[in-house]
Amino acid sequence: MSSSTDYKFEGWAGYDAKSVEGNLKFIEFEPKQFAEDDIDIQIMYCGICASDTSTLSEGWGPVGDMWPQVVGHEIVGKVVKVGKDTKNGIKEGDIVGVGAQCDSCLKCHYCNKDQENYCSGGWVPTYNGKFNRTSKDSKSYGGYANYWRGPSHFAIPLPKELDPAEAAPMLCGGGTVYSPLVQFGAGTEKCKNVGIIGLGGLGHFGVLLGNALGAEVTVISHSSRKQKDAEELGAKHFLVTGDDEAKAFKGHERSLDLIICTSNAPEMNMAAYLSLLKPQGNFIFVGIPETGKLPEITPGQLIFGNLHVGGSLIASPQQLKDMLQLCADKNVKSWIQRWSMDKINEAIPSMIAGNARYRYVLVNEQNGGKL
Amino acid sequence: MSSSTDYKFEGWAGYDAKSVEGNLKFIEFEPKQFAEDDIDIQIMYCGICASDTSTLSEGWGPVGDMWPQVVGHEIVGKVVKVGKDTKNGIKEGDIVGVGAQCDSCLKCHYCNKDQENYCSGGWVPTYNGKFNRTSKDSKSYGGYANYWRGPSHFAIPLPKELDPAEAAPMLCGGGTVYSPLVQFGAGTEKCKNVGIIGLGGLGHFGVLLGNALGAEVTVISHSSRKQKDAEELGAKHFLVTGDDEAKAFKGHERSLDLIICTSNAPEMNMAAYLSLLKPQGNFIFVGIPETGKLPEITPGQLIFGNLHVGGSLIASPQQLKDMLQLCADKNVKSWIQRWSMDKINEAIPSMIAGNARYRYVLVNEQNGGKL
Repeated sequence: MSSSTDYKFEGWAGYDAKSVEGNLKFIEFEPKQFAEDDIDIQIMYCGICASDTSTLSEGWGPVGDMWPQVVGHEIVGKVVKVGKDTKNGIKEGDIVGVGAQCDSCLKCHYCNKDQENYCSGGWVPTYNGKFNRTSKDSKSYGGYANYWRGPSHFAIPLPKELDPAEAAPMLCGGGTVYSPLVQFGAGTEKCKNVGIIGLGGLGHFGVLLGNALGAEVTVISHSSRKQKDAEELGAKHFLVTGDDEAKAFKGHERSLDLIICTSNAPEMNMAAYLSLLKPQGNFIFVGIPETGKLPEITPGQLIFGNLHVGGSLIASPQQLKDMLQLCADKNVKSWIQRWSMDKINEAIPSMIAGNARYRYVLVNEQNGGKL
Repeated sequence: MSSSTDYKFEGWAGYDAKSVEGNLKFIEFEPKQFAEDDIDIQIMYCGICASDTSTLSEGWGPVGDMWPQVVGHEIVGKVVKVGKDTKNGIKEGDIVGVGAQCDSCLKCHYCNKDQENYCSGGWVPTYNGKFNRTSKDSKSYGGYANYWRGPSHFAIPLPKELDPAEAAPMLCGGGTVYSPLVQFGAGTEKCKNVGIIGLGGLGHFGVLLGNALGAEVTVISHSSRKQKDAEELGAKHFLVTGDDEAKAFKGHERSLDLIICTSNAPEMNMAAYLSLLKPQGNFIFVGIPETGKLPEITPGQLIFGNLHVGGSLIASPQQLKDMLQLCADKNVKSWIQRWSMDKINEAIPSMIAGNARYRYVLVNEQNGGKL
């Protein structure tokens, strides 16, 4: 190996779309060449995100020459190697987290204003991507592994108050809802009422973080099955759609400033959902449906309501720092179930079956992770 | 007549969808009962808006029991009667303008914060509607007439610097683009670059007003036919789409903060248009297509670009006041052609044929309007 370390990079790799059915294989892999702004992390925890399974299953499209790949982008671990130009004040022994993005050009307009997640040309995903700023064309390898290597700019030191296992899924799942919450001012006068569609991994963070920011959160869900959880997470209202959203939302028109849609499907009754928004309201998609289709929207409804339908992609490193600090300050705790990483081929099918309440976190006990 | 005045309310009425072909008939009509916050206006000018023709042609749907109707909602005239509770400091003899909305509930949250155009329950359009706050169920009659009667709250005194004929089309056409321009901060640091799709009546106001607000305006048009006009109106850039928007926009990606779409069709290549927006950018529809369909948008593009597709409906009375004052201060002049109102049955087909550069204004010479 060219990494000139006394540890090997090993992880659970998918070789084809069937890997998602519990066929990941433990392999040794070659990380990127170590650059002076990189760090190596001994991975203690990694959350299982729906992006991982949509990538492995090729639900978002063929993965091509990225096989074999090690997914996972909710990584927490201990820093075991730092370069000369390490960022974020990181030093060996620190506990840090890495989310869904592991590099950007670091020089464009957006990178310069803390919007690396909308970088104009150098976005590298934590897996299923290739580096291009340093170690050009090396594949990026994610967190279903024992070690991670990558740019320290995208590694966030964890506040000491946080349980590192609970922090792991905040790095993607939490940030993905935190970003639009703060973009639209959740909790401020202009955005008091926030709706969260779908109470899954992202949705449960929507409630926790919306609540922590001071917004009044309404969960919108297909059935009342998760109502008690929603309330315990901090939701003030719970709307059950059943199979008739229009009927379910009668009397709730113009009650929300922002809706974050964590669960979307082309057959959603958008007219009904949009009726929930106040004028100037925003309906924000954060999850990319595997169909690639948006539900049907009529321009008249956007115009008459001064409504906006948009999207938001993960969070910037600065937003991740702010979110983790908020969680430390407000004692926000993710709801997780821990799985030994050795049981990954059981954990993934169980997660796909919808059993997580609300995030599975893989644990590397040999690296200090606690089951 | 119950209006107890020494003048009669007469105007050019449509009786069916064929009226738009030049078959309006001059009739006497019964205005609403005069309420103490109403005024009567002797109409000098009325602009011809595309809403007028889409209503008369039933392109937006059947008009039903609203036939016969007198359309027109870019009205300027002299106040000839005021009630005891007249608003906006209006007195007899003042020259005022009325736009596309003539009443609202005046008590909801939105009416109380200068957003009457998004009133929660009492929106009355200047034509094709029925009053419900005063003179309940009386039909609203628009500006293709000699007199107009309605709530003074929706009548805006014109700054003396403005030519009243040039001001008329600002009341709907101007306000409709002014509202999203100011909503998204056109001309401020966060919204320096504004795109206007389509150089028609609304589009020409987009250029004039975007420019007056200090934004750098790009006109996006099918051909180069109107490029010289666009530059003269104040546009800094002109993009010709031809039949291949994606090709036309190469090299212009992420160049605009806001796009106002004044001309839309279901076959628009939205992916190409959205590529023009910077992250956090907004694409705003202001015109309702007769098809009622939005062009296809992919959620991935919204998410990866942090983009928003929305709509905006006319302007509030306060925005109309602000806009007229801006036009007075910055010497903004609409580009209009004047038509005697007696020639309305020639003017409308000519307007539908696309001959306006960029707005037709009907003139009542007997009321002091100048041809």
